[in-house]
Amino acid sequence: MQVRSEETRQRILDVAARLFSDKGFDATGVAEICDASGVSKGAFYHHFPSKQTVFLQLLQDWLSGLDTQMTRTAQNASDVPSALLAMATEMKDVFTAADGRVHLFLEFWQQAGRHPDVWKEFIAPYRRYQQFFARIIEKGVAEGSLRAVDPQEAGHTLVALAVGVVVQGVLDPRAAAWDQVTRSAVQLLIEGMAARPGARASKER
Amino acid sequence: MQVRSEETRQRILDVAARLFSDKGFDATGVAEICDASGVSKGAFYHHFPSKQTVFLQLLQDWLSGLDTQMTRTAQNASDVPSALLAMATEMKDVFTAADGRVHLFLEFWQQAGRHPDVWKEFIAPYRRYQQFFARIIEKGVAEGSLRAVDPQEAGHTLVALAVGVVVQGVLDPRAAAWDQVTRSAVQLLIEGMAARPGARASKER
Repeated sequence: MQVRSEETRQRILDVAARLFSDKGFDATGVAEICDASGVSKGAFYHHFPSKQTVFLQLLQDWLSGLDTQMTRTAQNASDVPSALLAMATEMKDVFTAADGRVHLFLEFWQQAGRHPDVWKEFIAPYRRYQQFFARIIEKGVAEGSLRAVDPQEAGHTLVALAVGVVVQGVLDPRAAAWDQVTRSAVQLLIEGMAARPGARASKER
Repeated sequence: MQVRSEETRQRILDVAARLFSDKGFDATGVAEICDASGVSKGAFYHHFPSKQTVFLQLLQDWLSGLDTQMTRTAQNASDVPSALLAMATEMKDVFTAADGRVHLFLEFWQQAGRHPDVWKEFIAPYRRYQQFFARIIEKGVAEGSLRAVDPQEAGHTLVALAVGVVVQGVLDPRAAAWDQVTRSAVQLLIEGMAARPGARASKER
């Protein structure tokens, strides 16, 4: 019974993702999600209190895998520059995940402009990633691989770079080898933040 | 007569920008633009062959001021690092211009996903800016202020950073002092690309 229920929940999410993406959030009704997924309204409301809850769950599911991966990569790296470079390499998975989801992402953004509760959920990941990177930069400064840059600003810089590369990669996939651009960009930033020779052992590659 | 005609054209553009932004491109008809701007259909079609032409003109008007400013800044700076930093400082004008235009920008993006001719116009500025920055980086390498980084990749990096900062600044204006973040980010990149003391013509990577 438990398995069946989990299947139902996932089917609602999959169908809703497709409908929101094709038709938009506003033009998609709960009745239509139920029809297309072969689920009763009772079953729908058993899993989700509202259409908006489904929408927000899609956003969270999208990013939760990324969170886990980033944390693991940061923990496994020998120092902060290696961690940042390893995360840049893993951005290729973000490109893959983003492909075909642009319309859904734009729907999130449009709804975020209209509904404060959607907005809060929509910006939460950026703030979380910024904090995540700020802490990594702090660690790099503490371990001596980075010079004393401002961790908050460096965190914003890393998130901005990631957002910009994904936006461009999704908009214009053939304009560049975006995974290579990402690595190269992070490499430049690492060199800009690296501890200076003389001040401590230089670590530029 | 000429002045009057230019006024009419601009009124059509202003009214269309508001309607596209409020209701979306698809839901806005030429008749509605004419009504709201007090212009006859004949006058509309005298200025614009189609609703889409108005849409694309709005995109071009938005960016043409930025192009002029960037070129002037690049020419007036004493060297490439100063030029990049001056452009980072001028990004505050981009934030101001972007404010309140998010819905219109999202409309462009949505339509770009559906119509190849809109897509082409929508991505053109990114490609243009990337080339613009790639040439500046080349100049910096030639003048000896930058080491021999890849100009194409560095150009993509600068555009990605700008896009990412604007997206985040628009989404979450109070999360940071975004103009300061922009300057700080470009400063880090400049230091990552800077010619190394002693080295010159070093070609790490």
